[in-house]
Amino acid sequence: MIDHRLLAFEAVLQEGGFERAARRLALTQSAVSQRVKLLEAELGQVLLVRSKPARPTPAGRRLLPYLAQLRLMETEARRALEPGQRHGPMRLAVGVNADSLATWFIGAVAEVVREEGLVLDCVVDDQDHTHALLADGEVLGCVSTRPDPMRGCAAIRLGEMPYLCAASPAFRARWFPRGLSRSALAHAPAIIFGRNDDMHEAFLQRHFGLDTGQYPHHVVPSSEGFMAFAVAGLGYGFIPEIQARAHLARGELIDLAPQREEVVLYWHHWQVQSPVMARLAGAIAEAAARALGTPG
Amino acid sequence: MIDHRLLAFEAVLQEGGFERAARRLALTQSAVSQRVKLLEAELGQVLLVRSKPARPTPAGRRLLPYLAQLRLMETEARRALEPGQRHGPMRLAVGVNADSLATWFIGAVAEVVREEGLVLDCVVDDQDHTHALLADGEVLGCVSTRPDPMRGCAAIRLGEMPYLCAASPAFRARWFPRGLSRSALAHAPAIIFGRNDDMHEAFLQRHFGLDTGQYPHHVVPSSEGFMAFAVAGLGYGFIPEIQARAHLARGELIDLAPQREEVVLYWHHWQVQSPVMARLAGAIAEAAARALGTPG
Repeated sequence: MIDHRLLAFEAVLQEGGFERAARRLALTQSAVSQRVKLLEAELGQVLLVRSKPARPTPAGRRLLPYLAQLRLMETEARRALEPGQRHGPMRLAVGVNADSLATWFIGAVAEVVREEGLVLDCVVDDQDHTHALLADGEVLGCVSTRPDPMRGCAAIRLGEMPYLCAASPAFRARWFPRGLSRSALAHAPAIIFGRNDDMHEAFLQRHFGLDTGQYPHHVVPSSEGFMAFAVAGLGYGFIPEIQARAHLARGELIDLAPQREEVVLYWHHWQVQSPVMARLAGAIAEAAARALGTPG
Repeated sequence: MIDHRLLAFEAVLQEGGFERAARRLALTQSAVSQRVKLLEAELGQVLLVRSKPARPTPAGRRLLPYLAQLRLMETEARRALEPGQRHGPMRLAVGVNADSLATWFIGAVAEVVREEGLVLDCVVDDQDHTHALLADGEVLGCVSTRPDPMRGCAAIRLGEMPYLCAASPAFRARWFPRGLSRSALAHAPAIIFGRNDDMHEAFLQRHFGLDTGQYPHHVVPSSEGFMAFAVAGLGYGFIPEIQARAHLARGELIDLAPQREEVVLYWHHWQVQSPVMARLAGAIAEAAARALGTPG
């Protein structure tokens, strides 16, 4: 039910060129080219760079989220029209940061995913970058640390995710026998998730005046790998409180500092959203309120 | 102790240009340029594309692993020369696939990491791609599925990592009440790790004649997220046997098929390796032999 000019534009991008797009749509190449030109004329903007492979112009890129929305709405409309039919599952791409995916996110969406017959395409990225995925139309919603919604979008505050500074008891005995101090922190191996771990850095700078590069660190870009490094006594680092709880209770990890680093999370979605996306957003907000701190 | 022409080449690449490299090395820009030219003359190859930022030519790229090796050897030599000193930790970059990092890898390296005072930079990539990281000098060793060593490298066979096809009991009752079949598999949501999950695809094709795109699937690029999806009853998928074991024992997951998909893993490293790298390789081979199947 999507406009045939939009379909031509989408096919050229997905197939990488006019010839393959024509084959997919069972049209001549000139018919495909004609449809894209009509769309460009109507919008008064060039949408495609005619390179190999074809790429979207900045204007073309701004159309992509709109197309992703249209696709979802079409699927939902078809389902509503033929409720008795056995439908294929509905595909939803969502952006989520690794720590949320490892902790509260799956429990939050499980019921909606099962009941609506969804298949999720989880795009994992840093919590400060999931936002860009929404802007590019790669996802229809995302968990992000950014409070400000993009144009045409809305942001729901989900709550605060507290992180604590933890290590194994043997690690503390070896590296911090007298607690955390500037000189001990300058030598003890830290564990950070990615090359730019702002939380760890901010903590060391604010409380101990240590700068980038002044402390040794393992880089472990995996939520369970990070935890296993800490439990094995190879380093200390910031772990989500909900993820650390069981390990603290078993005495495998201990809490090194009274401070908590808080990350405030938001759910971003397009303002005009389909019924299923709205239901998903509701479930995420509700589960987050239970799993994370109460939104303040 | 590294040749000053190599240092100039390295600095230009790391800083992105001659001007900033000169500032870092406290030299004039023409001295830096002169050194790079001498190196190029000696090797008879152009090593740098003089663009902004400067990039290595294919020949320059082939020098990078050699430089990474030199750096490591220099660090080790300095430690050996001054054994009494308190040295900063030695940085080692290794490539590892997500499932190995989530299961046997950390236990394998823990003792060497602690005793040698290493900090690891784990670069997580698909097991079929970690190889390229070694070729580019980004890592000094990697876990890979490729049996053939690159030029100048060696590969140790680590063993076989068996994967089983698992789901929650409720998922099986709903989607596979009469076991796996072509028609059930065409509708049951699968869980795959990345967009190209060869194992799942090969299994469906070989045993059930199903092709790409003929089955719905969640995409969950996170080892613990994958597991949580399966436990929550949202899909079925291939999980490393060592990771599934505890969940099978608790009845949270059940084994759906008699087949095991085997992934043969190798440790790749440069032939000339430093004592610490050799010790690490030994520890990895030993732990893998215990954790994985016996090399056949």
